[in-house]
Amino acid sequence: MRLDREEDRVVVEEPLEIRLGRTPLAVTMRTPGEDRELAAGFLFTEGIVRKLSDIEEIAGPLRSLPNVVSIKLRRGVRFDRERLMRHFFATSSCGLCGKTTLAAIYARTRPIASHLRIPLKLLYSFPAHLRAAQETFEETGGLHAAALFNECGELLILREDVGRHNAVDKTIGAALMQGRLPLDGHVLLVSGRASFEIMQKALMARVPVVAAVSAPSSLAVALARKFKMTLVGFLRDETCNIYAGAARIGL
Amino acid sequence: MRLDREEDRVVVEEPLEIRLGRTPLAVTMRTPGEDRELAAGFLFTEGIVRKLSDIEEIAGPLRSLPNVVSIKLRRGVRFDRERLMRHFFATSSCGLCGKTTLAAIYARTRPIASHLRIPLKLLYSFPAHLRAAQETFEETGGLHAAALFNECGELLILREDVGRHNAVDKTIGAALMQGRLPLDGHVLLVSGRASFEIMQKALMARVPVVAAVSAPSSLAVALARKFKMTLVGFLRDETCNIYAGAARIGL
Repeated sequence: MRLDREEDRVVVEEPLEIRLGRTPLAVTMRTPGEDRELAAGFLFTEGIVRKLSDIEEIAGPLRSLPNVVSIKLRRGVRFDRERLMRHFFATSSCGLCGKTTLAAIYARTRPIASHLRIPLKLLYSFPAHLRAAQETFEETGGLHAAALFNECGELLILREDVGRHNAVDKTIGAALMQGRLPLDGHVLLVSGRASFEIMQKALMARVPVVAAVSAPSSLAVALARKFKMTLVGFLRDETCNIYAGAARIGL
Repeated sequence: MRLDREEDRVVVEEPLEIRLGRTPLAVTMRTPGEDRELAAGFLFTEGIVRKLSDIEEIAGPLRSLPNVVSIKLRRGVRFDRERLMRHFFATSSCGLCGKTTLAAIYARTRPIASHLRIPLKLLYSFPAHLRAAQETFEETGGLHAAALFNECGELLILREDVGRHNAVDKTIGAALMQGRLPLDGHVLLVSGRASFEIMQKALMARVPVVAAVSAPSSLAVALARKFKMTLVGFLRDETCNIYAGAARIGL
């Protein structure tokens, strides 16, 4: 046992307020860093921003206002604030957020048609890449990671956060800002569990293959099958389970 | 590698809609089971319900409506729906949910004065108790657990969920329904990380000692110190870190 007065091995968690112009839109508990990517990714995966050019300007965080990022939309980009509020009208850890049925998502989204094919052996190499690239993780043991790989198995983007969904939003936000979207030819790897909301975010970015080091949830599997995504779980120690879209994994 | 068509090792995740009477209040992604406790615990940790007698009736889930629980408040129990909406107006994984500063929480909450004292050796025995009591965990590897121990080291309540906050809400909801609140003489153990929101929920139930198997967040530590709670992290393999309130741990 030791007394920890020096704050070592503590995961930094602070609220980030995301504003649309001057209007507060959402607050998320996040690990500071890559806050603009987080804000951009959040707006993208929530369907408010559909392409990089929808964003005119991203401002903040400022030293005087370290937990606020403000995004100005391009003129003409509209969104239904009331509808969004209903989305958010929900408790934490909630991905469904007031969407009382999946019908709303199903109605406006096409299945993923990507012909991406990833050799199983290549897939097995991803978790080690992820761990090697995660420096913070080893220290604190408390951060979630998300990483984007291309079909050659190169790790293109890695982001960490105290919140698993934030790690994915940061990754997708970075891809958006780097002009990489849509992500038809890519694999998203998450360090923990694959939840429904992670699949939803991946779907928005058109990622055909999502792999998780831990278990997927039943609703994640349902969403993957519905939208012809590939969902791999328990990807570790040269083994895995394939829950949907096995045709994209080459044996 | 194996193809998983039989849905084995999948964590069940489904939306639960919590209603106040007939009005939808929140939707959370949860593992079905103990839904009434989850709803009661949620209303309690959100400050809508302050004691068991504030609840007149809990209805659901019905077979025809398996993902809805409706709570009827006792006549005279009021809550500010607008204020609550602002709380929820936030993204997932968010514990702060629109509370733009901590000031609102700080204003109406007293520090915890409990004189509980837990021998370190007893504390070390808790994770093994938790694991022994967790049956689902071993199968799926994807569920979070929360457990309530008394000062003799007995495990009183254990609840699991796909969402870490739900596991805590279920535990506190069960304690509420069993007439155990406030929890001055108890320890809350969580299987993963101690986030700000978990500390906030424990504070609402007046739990003096929170222990986590994994890392705490910086804001969790800040909240623990502010309210004189004891926060133990990395409690595993007969070791731990004490981040706040060490006086309650007997050496």
